Amino acid sequence: MAAVRPGIEAIEVYFPSQYVEQDALEKFDGVSEGKYTIGLGQKQIGFTSDFENVHSLALTVVSNLMKKANISYNDIGRLTVSSETILDKSKSIKSVIMQLFEESGNFDVEGCDYLNACYSGTAAFFDSVNWIQNEEWDGRRAIVVAVDIAEYAPGPARPTGGAGAVAMLIGPNPVVSLERGRASFMKNTYDFYKPYLSSPFPVVDGKLSNECYLESLDECYQKFCQKRKQLQKKDTHLEDWDYCVFHSPYNKLVQKSFGRLMYNDFLMHPEKDDYCSLQEFLSLDPSKTRSDRTVYKAFAKASKALYTKKVAPSTVLPKVIGNCYSASVYIALASLIVESDATELLDANVLTFSYGSGLCSSIFHLKFCSEEDRIRTLQRQVDYRHRLQDRLPCTPEVFNKLMDDKCAALENDREFFEPQGPPPNLFPGTFRVMHRTEKGVHEYREWAKDLKATCNEM
Amino acid sequence: MAAVRPGIEAIEVYFPSQYVEQDALEKFDGVSEGKYTIGLGQKQIGFTSDFENVHSLALTVVSNLMKKANISYNDIGRLTVSSETILDKSKSIKSVIMQLFEESGNFDVEGCDYLNACYSGTAAFFDSVNWIQNEEWDGRRAIVVAVDIAEYAPGPARPTGGAGAVAMLIGPNPVVSLERGRASFMKNTYDFYKPYLSSPFPVVDGKLSNECYLESLDECYQKFCQKRKQLQKKDTHLEDWDYCVFHSPYNKLVQKSFGRLMYNDFLMHPEKDDYCSLQEFLSLDPSKTRSDRTVYKAFAKASKALYTKKVAPSTVLPKVIGNCYSASVYIALASLIVESDATELLDANVLTFSYGSGLCSSIFHLKFCSEEDRIRTLQRQVDYRHRLQDRLPCTPEVFNKLMDDKCAALENDREFFEPQGPPPNLFPGTFRVMHRTEKGVHEYREWAKDLKATCNEM
Repeated sequence: MAAVRPGIEAIEVYFPSQYVEQDALEKFDGVSEGKYTIGLGQKQIGFTSDFENVHSLALTVVSNLMKKANISYNDIGRLTVSSETILDKSKSIKSVIMQLFEESGNFDVEGCDYLNACYSGTAAFFDSVNWIQNEEWDGRRAIVVAVDIAEYAPGPARPTGGAGAVAMLIGPNPVVSLERGRASFMKNTYDFYKPYLSSPFPVVDGKLSNECYLESLDECYQKFCQKRKQLQKKDTHLEDWDYCVFHSPYNKLVQKSFGRLMYNDFLMHPEKDDYCSLQEFLSLDPSKTRSDRTVYKAFAKASKALYTKKVAPSTVLPKVIGNCYSASVYIALASLIVESDATELLDANVLTFSYGSGLCSSIFHLKFCSEEDRIRTLQRQVDYRHRLQDRLPCTPEVFNKLMDDKCAALENDREFFEPQGPPPNLFPGTFRVMHRTEKGVHEYREWAKDLKATCNEM
Repeated sequence: MAAVRPGIEAIEVYFPSQYVEQDALEKFDGVSEGKYTIGLGQKQIGFTSDFENVHSLALTVVSNLMKKANISYNDIGRLTVSSETILDKSKSIKSVIMQLFEESGNFDVEGCDYLNACYSGTAAFFDSVNWIQNEEWDGRRAIVVAVDIAEYAPGPARPTGGAGAVAMLIGPNPVVSLERGRASFMKNTYDFYKPYLSSPFPVVDGKLSNECYLESLDECYQKFCQKRKQLQKKDTHLEDWDYCVFHSPYNKLVQKSFGRLMYNDFLMHPEKDDYCSLQEFLSLDPSKTRSDRTVYKAFAKASKALYTKKVAPSTVLPKVIGNCYSASVYIALASLIVESDATELLDANVLTFSYGSGLCSSIFHLKFCSEEDRIRTLQRQVDYRHRLQDRLPCTPEVFNKLMDDKCAALENDREFFEPQGPPPNLFPGTFRVMHRTEKGVHEYREWAKDLKATCNEM
């Protein structure tokens, strides 16, 4: 048996403690019923008030990971943060998180921030695994943080927002390993980007972005299968994957992607019995079928049962917190871990697709490589269900008002800023924004009972 | 003999084709003679017009590297860009450079952008070496790009600006290898940062930043020496280093840093003959001596001869183009390569200090590990002296006017933008901005004679 490869030893997710229902947004926005809930496939959006920002989310998720994994800050030798929520064009979020390390006296922690839309967590994950495998490695662990607040201008894209963070402890004795063989597809596109620096909102060409996402999936999967053929001297089949985890801008695109994956498998292995009713699609030019509704519908139907088994568990959390950009694909992985039985996850092979507009994308192979006990421990550690239940439902009015307020605070970035009143319903252990000075210095503090008392006095 | 470790196989630098003299700036600004030329130790500043931006600089330096190193885009398996000059908060500069790969059909190129002030090139360099050393490595090369345009608001910091790019080809058969043993120091500070997103200018606390820089140098060097002791079972001495290369915000800080390095060596080995006249400084608290003028002057004097030998060659280029942020330390390395004799560089050990505000810093060991012929080839390849001579001198008025114009274009980021007139004095092979659309889409083209004709017609 081959030696275990490095990978994920622990994982922690964080999402805001307030949300709005997508069906309430449909009514509020005056759109047809089901436009967001079925058309996008989303149930709720989690969103932050001005008591939180991308720094505080990152501080919270790392602090929680360290407590739950019960390790010392001295045991960390690398920490990186992946994000496209830019609060500062120079100072890294990683440097902000170093305040958590001060007490330990450990300042020898490699790594800085990674940037490319929703992809950058994956670049950091690959590099962290390489770091562990290097002869230079000194035995300490790496932490990969991916964190984003996804906000859109009022209009059709707003319901595709969300917010969340993930922190993964990367080490040599993982529960989920990064297996050999991966493929990337990188190209200069303007499908989704953020050229207006003082605005939190992106410029989005939705149609182009879906096309780019599916092109990347095609290109990555084909290259990935070629590489595996060279490496393992055998063909790759859809049946090789117990689960498929996708970057999830919204659930409908994940459904589409799994059908597309089957279409790719069909093109490589049209002789399979399951594909006998689909032979008519063999003659089409694949590059022209990405927005072909007939192809989409045929493969959605053919893949439906497999979707429920292989994909649905990873979509539970993304559907109720929304798009978390760089964190999204790893939040989907956390969802798979929590929503599945440990016995089912044992030895499971997971095909994972990471996409970031602009564009950067990769397909890679994760494997549940540990014994069942450790899978159960990981499940207990990352379990987010109690926190989902503790969230506060908000009206579309409150949601939109908070978006406007945060937008104004961002634009008035030369003024002193302090969130007003006590923080709304923050989970214990959450870091909150104390203030931002006129000079752009941010201060954060962990939310606890004694702080609550102080705040009420303010 | 141990196997050669991966490192730099080729290196290319790019700097703007126009500059202003620091002594002319002194007169223009009405400051005392020598304030910039001696006080900062800088001779000239290179600066870009609005025909160039961070994308075009990156395109130029990669395109030139590929031509000079005479390799195919198919031979590249990883490309990362390190920068703190943010044109877009989501889309990576790496994705923009992928347009150079289109013709080759190679889209399987890992990596995205790195961010932390002037440090991020070093994080990318370490990761690229790890990538080469990994069992997953497929034999292709990595490219590390570091690129920045350093601009300051009118006032005392403006003369510390600059602009430049470096691209390094990382492979298993290097001229300059990254040797084992390195140390980092990472901490949450607000010494230099960019919280005002629509402004190109940073917020700088100059005194704090110098203090942070020297604290990082102390902490990195001490940890580095400890690690080498564990690794090699012997002490580290200043004499072990044939050359020292520093991140260079301005030359005076590099002079100070070399004195500080000797001070650290003195604290570790006070018994050395060379240090007998400095014993009075042994009793001071080292953490309180970073802005102590007596200590600074004593070690500046004691280290002067060694500075000329070990440091001066790496300061030639930085002094005439200015601070290039993330590229700065590697531009200093290029300067060392070009300004030294190949026979001197043979087997040379180089102590390298990389610093980025916020803060992230590392000390590491580079070694000229190839035969003399290959060093000469590298020298010819990276030689920038003819391009320095071809630069166009500009007046302080032109310099300041261009800074204002670019600032306005950045702030009016929702308007169509097109640089006016023919590009000023661009070197052949330079990529130029064609336009930026209202939606923030940038187009670039390589500057060539036929394009010149087109431009004159516009």
